[in-house]
Amino acid sequence: MMKECLENVRSRAPLVHNITNYVTVNDVANVLLACGGSPIMSDDADEVEDITSICGGLNINIGTLNKNTIPSMFLAGRKANALGHIVLLDPVGAGASKLRTEIALKLLEEVKFDVIRGNISEIKTLALGSGHTKGVDADAADAVNEENLDKTIAYIKELSAWTDSIVAVTGAIDLVCDLEKCYVIRNGRPEMGKITGTGCQLSGMMTAFVAANPDNKLEAAAAAVMTMGLAGEIGYRNMQPGDGNATYRNRIIDAIYNMDGDALEAGAKYEIR
Amino acid sequence: MMKECLENVRSRAPLVHNITNYVTVNDVANVLLACGGSPIMSDDADEVEDITSICGGLNINIGTLNKNTIPSMFLAGRKANALGHIVLLDPVGAGASKLRTEIALKLLEEVKFDVIRGNISEIKTLALGSGHTKGVDADAADAVNEENLDKTIAYIKELSAWTDSIVAVTGAIDLVCDLEKCYVIRNGRPEMGKITGTGCQLSGMMTAFVAANPDNKLEAAAAAVMTMGLAGEIGYRNMQPGDGNATYRNRIIDAIYNMDGDALEAGAKYEIR
Amino acid sequence: MMKECLENVRSRAPLVHNITNYVTVNDVANVLLACGGSPIMSDDADEVEDITSICGGLNINIGTLNKNTIPSMFLAGRKANALGHIVLLDPVGAGASKLRTEIALKLLEEVKFDVIRGNISEIKTLALGSGHTKGVDADAADAVNEENLDKTIAYIKELSAWTDSIVAVTGAIDLVCDLEKCYVIRNGRPEMGKITGTGCQLSGMMTAFVAANPDNKLEAAAAAVMTMGLAGEIGYRNMQPGDGNATYRNRIIDAIYNMDGDALEAGAKYEIR
Repeated sequence: MMKECLENVRSRAPLVHNITNYVTVNDVANVLLACGGSPIMSDDADEVEDITSICGGLNINIGTLNKNTIPSMFLAGRKANALGHIVLLDPVGAGASKLRTEIALKLLEEVKFDVIRGNISEIKTLALGSGHTKGVDADAADAVNEENLDKTIAYIKELSAWTDSIVAVTGAIDLVCDLEKCYVIRNGRPEMGKITGTGCQLSGMMTAFVAANPDNKLEAAAAAVMTMGLAGEIGYRNMQPGDGNATYRNRIIDAIYNMDGDALEAGAKYEIR
Repeated sequence: MMKECLENVRSRAPLVHNITNYVTVNDVANVLLACGGSPIMSDDADEVEDITSICGGLNINIGTLNKNTIPSMFLAGRKANALGHIVLLDPVGAGASKLRTEIALKLLEEVKFDVIRGNISEIKTLALGSGHTKGVDADAADAVNEENLDKTIAYIKELSAWTDSIVAVTGAIDLVCDLEKCYVIRNGRPEMGKITGTGCQLSGMMTAFVAANPDNKLEAAAAAVMTMGLAGEIGYRNMQPGDGNATYRNRIIDAIYNMDGDALEAGAKYEIR
Repeated sequence: MMKECLENVRSRAPLVHNITNYVTVNDVANVLLACGGSPIMSDDADEVEDITSICGGLNINIGTLNKNTIPSMFLAGRKANALGHIVLLDPVGAGASKLRTEIALKLLEEVKFDVIRGNISEIKTLALGSGHTKGVDADAADAVNEENLDKTIAYIKELSAWTDSIVAVTGAIDLVCDLEKCYVIRNGRPEMGKITGTGCQLSGMMTAFVAANPDNKLEAAAAAVMTMGLAGEIGYRNMQPGDGNATYRNRIIDAIYNMDGDALEAGAKYEIR
């Protein structure tokens, strides 16, 4: 199943429109290429409808949002909805400023998202209309762990029902839920948190996965999480003495580039709840 | 000949003003440093004329263009023209949105470009005033191959005559033409297409090459293409098991950094038609 | 002493707000993570006060400044001042355009900076209200060397008195001065100048160091310079045949990631004048 999801990305090569932050944008582009998708970045109101029209998916990431790119997010989101394209929201830093929280909530009102992907603090902010996000990282107090897992899953499923979106919460344990089913994923490495933008990269890749697997969106979103997590494990195994977070960043993208469906299937660690 | 072109970049260290997209800008800067040039990025209308005045070349790249940077492209372009500086246009994604096509065509009207560099779909868009660009990548139907090579060269020479610019079309086979002479270059690797921004990097480097060789612009533009392509070959030979597109990106920049004139001369694969 | 400065960054993990250029922003984020800090980037006037409020330090870098981000620099700077947060100015390219020079000087008037960090040409521009900056690199005629060292130190101490800021001048010899004391630092490698953004990276890291060591700001700023320089030396030792500036960039960040207080203490090369 996960195998097919990745193979469909490689064979269908979905073009993904990214309205994303300027911090991690280069890595997002290279990860999209690594997994078999094709990236295009564009954020001016005068062209985002044209650009999103030629794509199969739209990835809206609110990191470094600004007064020029905010209207573009709405324009592109509505256009992608009208065309039936896959649309993903990455609410980077929701909770860290009023602006980010408000824009994220307004996007949820005006655009139908197939998938919302964030850390637990960002996702809680969306659910509660407020939050206590520590910058762009999740607050430790919010962390998903074995103790609060069932409660958290129930909470995320509710949020999925409320937003009518797949909700993907990534952290030490990753959850990818619709209103009925939750993939609980245990791939990945804690050291991935020492690289900027692994979340942004995952959002770009997840848009490609879902766009290439429109009949299996939940599985595709989960497969993207597993691909990223497994790449984090493979990349970590390939680290040499003296390597640090810069090399690790490259190793992860390299591992995605070299991953095939069988490797993903064999390495994926998940259960369904 | 190619040897001298590269050596002049290293000895003259031209300062290149880049108005470029935020996706690949870091790689553009590092490639400019790798080849011996010096990069400066600036895109605000209130300073681009000052900045371009202290440079020897201007690289205008319309990827992620927006309402703030578009006027800056015209201001800087006209100023660079007035000062007799080298100016290059990289029409990223021309054909993918009305805005990009219109701005690219308007730039061609109002600014005199020494060089235009793009993929075949972007270049065709400029020639025809429309196009069918697949995002930022060339459409497969447009690809230059051995069968359509002569016809394509004639077409590019005409475009060169019409625009009064050197026209560089990069892809599986690269063409660097003025109205009379065409360098047909067969360096490079197909895997370079799996890295974001090799075209943008080449445009930055080509601006430095032409700025450092004002009396041999066509040869210098061709030498930049060969440098990039040969670096792609060297970088690929240096790949280890497990390496992917992220490491390959670094290997290519590293290969440019270490390349000398003799290595370029020995590795360049071209004919003149 | 230097040891404690680094260890405090790792244990206190200061959140640093960066209003910085889009060229080197990704490396700034990864360097902040490598040294133990936590980065957040935000430059819209509607949110910078919120964002800086949750941080411990603010890093203002005027590379690629524009009409949207300039007001944000003032808003965030004043807010950070009001909250008693650490604020650093990196006057990238001051002297290269009227706009950059004016904004840098206006920031110095309206915002109290704990630290100003730049190359000697940028710093001279601030001192003189003008300059002859070669793009974003220092002019060779300005270079600090053994002959002009005492004179330069006196000059920088005066500037420190005038601005009431620690002034850090980086180049072949690095100087970190307040009005009384100057750390003269001889770590680093000339090849670091062939990587874009090592200065920007240092400014981000220095903000984290000073924020984590509020009672020893001068020492902390100097320790950041030594960390960067020593990482440049370690990274260089780890270079393999064929490696160039792209790999070197990663090696330096990796070396910061792996550096501990004892290694810093042992490798730091400095005197106090």
